[in-house]
Amino acid sequence: MNTHTSQDTPFIPAPWITTVAGYLLTRLAEAGLASVFGVPGDDNLGILDAIADRPDLAWIGMATEQGAGYAADSYARLRGIGALVTTFGVGELSALNAIAGAYAESVPVVHIVGTPALAAIQTGTTRHHNLPGRDYGHFARMAAEVTAAQADLRPDTAPEEIDRVLSTALRTSRPVYLTIPADVAGIPVLAPAGRLPRAAGDADPAVVAAFTGRARRMLAAAASASLLVGHLASRHRVTAQVRDLAIAGDLPVAVLPEAKGDFPESDPRFAGLYAGPDPYPSAKRARVAVEDADVLITVGVTLADTILGGAHQLPEGRRIVLDPGQACIDGIVYPGIGMRQSLAILAAAVRSMPPRAALADLPPFEAAPDVRGGQLTHGSLWARVQDLLRPGDLLIADQGTAFYGAAGLTLPDGAQLLGQPLWASTGWALPAALGASLAAPDRRVVLIAGDGAMQQTAAELGTMLGQGLAPIVIVLSNGGDPIEQAIHRASAGYDEFPAWDWTALPAAVAPASSPVALRVETSRELAWALNRAHYQAGTGRPVLVEAVLPASDAPLMLQELTRALAAPDR
Amino acid sequence: MNTHTSQDTPFIPAPWITTVAGYLLTRLAEAGLASVFGVPGDDNLGILDAIADRPDLAWIGMATEQGAGYAADSYARLRGIGALVTTFGVGELSALNAIAGAYAESVPVVHIVGTPALAAIQTGTTRHHNLPGRDYGHFARMAAEVTAAQADLRPDTAPEEIDRVLSTALRTSRPVYLTIPADVAGIPVLAPAGRLPRAAGDADPAVVAAFTGRARRMLAAAASASLLVGHLASRHRVTAQVRDLAIAGDLPVAVLPEAKGDFPESDPRFAGLYAGPDPYPSAKRARVAVEDADVLITVGVTLADTILGGAHQLPEGRRIVLDPGQACIDGIVYPGIGMRQSLAILAAAVRSMPPRAALADLPPFEAAPDVRGGQLTHGSLWARVQDLLRPGDLLIADQGTAFYGAAGLTLPDGAQLLGQPLWASTGWALPAALGASLAAPDRRVVLIAGDGAMQQTAAELGTMLGQGLAPIVIVLSNGGDPIEQAIHRASAGYDEFPAWDWTALPAAVAPASSPVALRVETSRELAWALNRAHYQAGTGRPVLVEAVLPASDAPLMLQELTRALAAPDR
Repeated sequence: MNTHTSQDTPFIPAPWITTVAGYLLTRLAEAGLASVFGVPGDDNLGILDAIADRPDLAWIGMATEQGAGYAADSYARLRGIGALVTTFGVGELSALNAIAGAYAESVPVVHIVGTPALAAIQTGTTRHHNLPGRDYGHFARMAAEVTAAQADLRPDTAPEEIDRVLSTALRTSRPVYLTIPADVAGIPVLAPAGRLPRAAGDADPAVVAAFTGRARRMLAAAASASLLVGHLASRHRVTAQVRDLAIAGDLPVAVLPEAKGDFPESDPRFAGLYAGPDPYPSAKRARVAVEDADVLITVGVTLADTILGGAHQLPEGRRIVLDPGQACIDGIVYPGIGMRQSLAILAAAVRSMPPRAALADLPPFEAAPDVRGGQLTHGSLWARVQDLLRPGDLLIADQGTAFYGAAGLTLPDGAQLLGQPLWASTGWALPAALGASLAAPDRRVVLIAGDGAMQQTAAELGTMLGQGLAPIVIVLSNGGDPIEQAIHRASAGYDEFPAWDWTALPAAVAPASSPVALRVETSRELAWALNRAHYQAGTGRPVLVEAVLPASDAPLMLQELTRALAAPDR
Repeated sequence: MNTHTSQDTPFIPAPWITTVAGYLLTRLAEAGLASVFGVPGDDNLGILDAIADRPDLAWIGMATEQGAGYAADSYARLRGIGALVTTFGVGELSALNAIAGAYAESVPVVHIVGTPALAAIQTGTTRHHNLPGRDYGHFARMAAEVTAAQADLRPDTAPEEIDRVLSTALRTSRPVYLTIPADVAGIPVLAPAGRLPRAAGDADPAVVAAFTGRARRMLAAAASASLLVGHLASRHRVTAQVRDLAIAGDLPVAVLPEAKGDFPESDPRFAGLYAGPDPYPSAKRARVAVEDADVLITVGVTLADTILGGAHQLPEGRRIVLDPGQACIDGIVYPGIGMRQSLAILAAAVRSMPPRAALADLPPFEAAPDVRGGQLTHGSLWARVQDLLRPGDLLIADQGTAFYGAAGLTLPDGAQLLGQPLWASTGWALPAALGASLAAPDRRVVLIAGDGAMQQTAAELGTMLGQGLAPIVIVLSNGGDPIEQAIHRASAGYDEFPAWDWTALPAAVAPASSPVALRVETSRELAWALNRAHYQAGTGRPVLVEAVLPASDAPLMLQELTRALAAPDR
């Protein structure tokens, strides 16, 4: 026994007694969580009791588990942590698409599943919500494919397991999976005594020195350098450090669509959106900044086909790649260096760079055509949405025409675009707007989604309005899927789906909220409707606008992208 | 080379050339499939093209993949095979709950997933709808947990792999999983030359002889014998053989709720529903038949907690257990004997039984109290639904108050109850009603579901009405979950969810179908509404009835069951 150590230990007050569920909730609240999404089920009621007992956590009962997962996803993007509670089998499997999406898009969502009591599992009879037989591990094995860490909680190890799994979620910015048997949730354990451990270990000083020396030499020899920002910069909370680096070197900064709004677009260093296959016409400034730079520094970039159509032309051999947990120059990986550290190293390095190509040498932004009259088209629609935007807005756009249209907007300062272009699951945006509204109650939320996408999660409109949330909702109504039609064939029949009367839906799913629902078919009608929505925002009365669009129209960026995605070898 | 064999082979005309997708569809049509459910996605369009090219297959585009899975489930229960098509990742994961449900409930659903082209997978870049990295196997490994067979199709092995997987689905009555890369669907292969192999091998004659001898001695010594029928009798298509056995021995027949309607309730041998924990009061006749029998023959029975509350009292040591693929007497398993064979053996054996307790010795059926006046309650609701039922009706009831209320009804000849009491996923019934309507277009479909369950899949009401289907829809509207309230605590807040105006929903999701939607609050109003629905059936104009019920009321069987499920060790 090491008495020496115990003599050195300062006095620590004994933590209070809580329960397994209480310990988990305390850690989640510590990480910034204030709303828990989910659906009640017979195996998670003990967890819900523990939530109901906490004044600092609100239970947001959703119509569907998938909706709960999507809401927790957007909530986590804005608050750094999100959580949903489902029940064994039937509940958790309905959330799997949302959890996989959180993995693909790098979002720290904690999936908490109430499972049958240990006593019930041990009897071995067939139980509802399970497959026939005694194997209760099917769903945990499925969850392990789409989460970064997992634990099935037991009273004697629950605190350390909860800390391990939540630390992984925060460090990796990936979803995790925790199961709590019904007879374990309420078992007493000590409450957390210290803070949740978060950081990975420091990088080896020799590795840091090697990276620093190599980066300095490369930048010192370069005539120009640029930054390309991906979504992992925001997910790992280093967007301020990205800006510091840009300012330190007066570097042009281009962003990928999934990082839209993560660098201020009013900043003179902003070079625009790097997106779409070559030669995507409206982003020449960004293309020159990225592809013609002597050195390109990428920060948290994932190159995916839905962003660049598979035809990106990043300079090979002149790249400094900053990723979570590692950096890379010319194919040499420098392990253990987080983006916060690597960005700071580069900020110091660029200060000693020689004078280089001025930002003014970049091509100017090309303004989108200002189409404002006549029947509504994607051209005139996005011009009107541009007029609506205000600083700080949260624009939530579903995959498809909505996201690629929104990605082409100019975002006012502090405004952000949230979308799901990597996982690309239609229907994400409506529950995501709910999650965003709760995560950032002081910001205005504008939800834009196609009618097919809205149908997939339409029930959560009732949940959202029932919670008293009143984002501006714009449904792009065209009764078909322009992406599939463009990729495959223009009119195959199976791309069509039943037309809904969107103006009648709010009164059906939220009769108590007296929503305003308007159908518009011309650019002027849309301007009028959005004006009304703008002045009504904050009154608590929601506005839904059904914008009727031509069946095969699509935003310019999407037209380019689908041409690339339709290539025969894909 | 064996020239001898080729000389013996008769002339077989060469089969025509089809494609990989075409081969699969030909086999599905051969098995009885006429409707394919699903959602288009960028990786399954080649499969949808192949469906569109076939006049014998209808594509039913659903709002959600979960809805497609549920529809395929009920379709398969009625037709012996069901299928859905989804797309890689985002699509297939949204269907996983439905597929797991098909496994738990033993339903042969074929899940067909369009995946990225082999060429795209081999490039190794991050692709949308996948997790980061080069591993394209995450979702197939997940699917393997909830399906009985799987194959990732390649042109050179596709025919044999399709045959292997579909044969497994039909033989085991379980879901299976087939992935077709986008560049494989259209590759030419030979069309099927013969019939799809279905049967398992015959049982060992010595095993059959041993089983026959043992069963004969047991029955010869018995003063009485009874039958208890579970859902696997219907799934493995032996309900006619069950009836043959009952007639051969003049045996009383009790059914579990999941086999409700699988034995004619007007047959004098019908002993009623064996359900609920002891002493469930309204099933004394069934209880005596099952528990007091000298020999109990169970056919395709799975003992699950949601059926019997964990408190069944089947006679031990006097049971002949007939299951798919095996029989069992006193714990001794006789492998390889299918139910069709074992039922035939027993039918021969019971003919030589001594005279035994007459059916007339069983207690009479106890009539449910005939409550018809005043505000609507579960008592009066089910009395009115009973009046509505006609021979041949398909009653689709969601898990919860709907299923346990429906299980207490007396079914007219040929009427069936479809529910999901083993997997117990709320929201199943609405898409299941759609699937049932297409599987059995000549039968009247009555859908009954609680409001919380209906919210989960409400979008498919638009799909159903958009297809021109017009079942009678009854929504049990009480704004809460009586099961969770009864299991756990009466009013915990988290069991409540937003109230919808159900009478306004049909016009929002199916404006073209001019649906009739009525809200009723008294027994007389319900009678009037159901009368209207009855006379309107067949006009193609759908009727939705919102039946307003007290918040904590529940059918009698459910009240008994929830008392058992709330026991502390569960």
